[in-house]
Amino acid sequence: MPFVTALVAAAGKGRRLGLGYNKVFLHLKGRPLLSYSLEVLEKSPLVQAVIVVTAPGDVAKCWDVIGRGYAKSIRVVEGGEERQDSVSQGLKALPAETEFVAVHDAARPLVTQELLAAVVEAALETGAAIAAVPVQDTIKRSGTAGIVEGTVDREGLWAAQTPQVFRRDWLEEAHSRAMLEGWRATDDASLVERCGYPVRIVKGDYGNIKVTTPVDVILATALLEARKRQDWAFLGERRPGPYA
Amino acid sequence: MPFVTALVAAAGKGRRLGLGYNKVFLHLKGRPLLSYSLEVLEKSPLVQAVIVVTAPGDVAKCWDVIGRGYAKSIRVVEGGEERQDSVSQGLKALPAETEFVAVHDAARPLVTQELLAAVVEAALETGAAIAAVPVQDTIKRSGTAGIVEGTVDREGLWAAQTPQVFRRDWLEEAHSRAMLEGWRATDDASLVERCGYPVRIVKGDYGNIKVTTPVDVILATALLEARKRQDWAFLGERRPGPYA
Repeated sequence: MPFVTALVAAAGKGRRLGLGYNKVFLHLKGRPLLSYSLEVLEKSPLVQAVIVVTAPGDVAKCWDVIGRGYAKSIRVVEGGEERQDSVSQGLKALPAETEFVAVHDAARPLVTQELLAAVVEAALETGAAIAAVPVQDTIKRSGTAGIVEGTVDREGLWAAQTPQVFRRDWLEEAHSRAMLEGWRATDDASLVERCGYPVRIVKGDYGNIKVTTPVDVILATALLEARKRQDWAFLGERRPGPYA
Repeated sequence: MPFVTALVAAAGKGRRLGLGYNKVFLHLKGRPLLSYSLEVLEKSPLVQAVIVVTAPGDVAKCWDVIGRGYAKSIRVVEGGEERQDSVSQGLKALPAETEFVAVHDAARPLVTQELLAAVVEAALETGAAIAAVPVQDTIKRSGTAGIVEGTVDREGLWAAQTPQVFRRDWLEEAHSRAMLEGWRATDDASLVERCGYPVRIVKGDYGNIKVTTPVDVILATALLEARKRQDWAFLGERRPGPYA
């Protein structure tokens, strides 16, 4: 089996949450946000090693979250100014044996074993794969003075999530070229695409949300609770009572 | 003050929820989904009348939800096959005095007085306005065989919500032309845009979600509870405890 290293982006500043500290340490249901992703990666039979990239100064706090006895090779490294710089820093810390890199945002605590496995397996086949969900909203492009310029055809549009899994050499090349040529992107797949490599889309979960705003904290907490209850929403079995 | 009639789209089939009945009757926190929007419209000083467009056969159930003593002129009419056809049917039932139409999806129970007022006021100024939020996701366009064709520049992209408020004559013209020329769209603004009228974007709330999937039921319930608690997420005051 190929050697897959997970790279966890955990250098968030928590600005939009107004926290004054890195949001990966925010407690959801009594546990830091970061711990949810780490647990999924720890238990995945497809992941051999984990790199956590965090903000300078937060390394010790990450080790507190990881705790003793983490069942996998794990390193914590300092990231850079923006998310892209952080992933770039993380790549320098990959174990030598690494053949594939699974990038995941610590801000997505709802990732499941099933989704992680699906994306890793697609990437092993084709070299690169990302989780994404079909866009359900009607999308407008705004023009001058806040007037709608047009409605974007949402057919074939997907909202990217993480995990995003890549051949190590593709991802390293993408980040090197980004550095040299000044490319900036909001996800890693964009850089790999720009190098001309094919990136496969794997259907993600609408529940695999990214915790960015205060509203997201409420949503993520509710989803974690529903999952714990093995709620019908996740199992597709029980249904809320009908209106009689 | 101009005469504003709210048109509530409430003919959903609840297919993606697997309910077997119209989702507007689904109970959230003990009340039907439909009742939340109706209450906001009832209490709005900017709305003079309400039309509920529902599925054929659900008219009596809508009246049950409305109950006695609804503090505003209200009618319930039968809609058509798709959402666009339903709005079109609703337009035929507008009170004669109507100058502006505020279209709202019953599936968005989190709409607030503040957002409704902001969109109505913008439309009174410019003729047409919609609630929308900046797209936060990285958006991909998929090509053949599920391979990413490219990343869409999300700068200037907005996810449309409701309320959407229009001059009555613009909206009627848009729906007539849509009927004649076979236009199909996922929101009313698209039709009005296509007629060449300017549609103003008003910043909506990320919490103003549309209940479509089972996950959305969990999210909407959590948001309704948070609002009831006057949670920090809505008030921007209290904060979750820091990770110590």
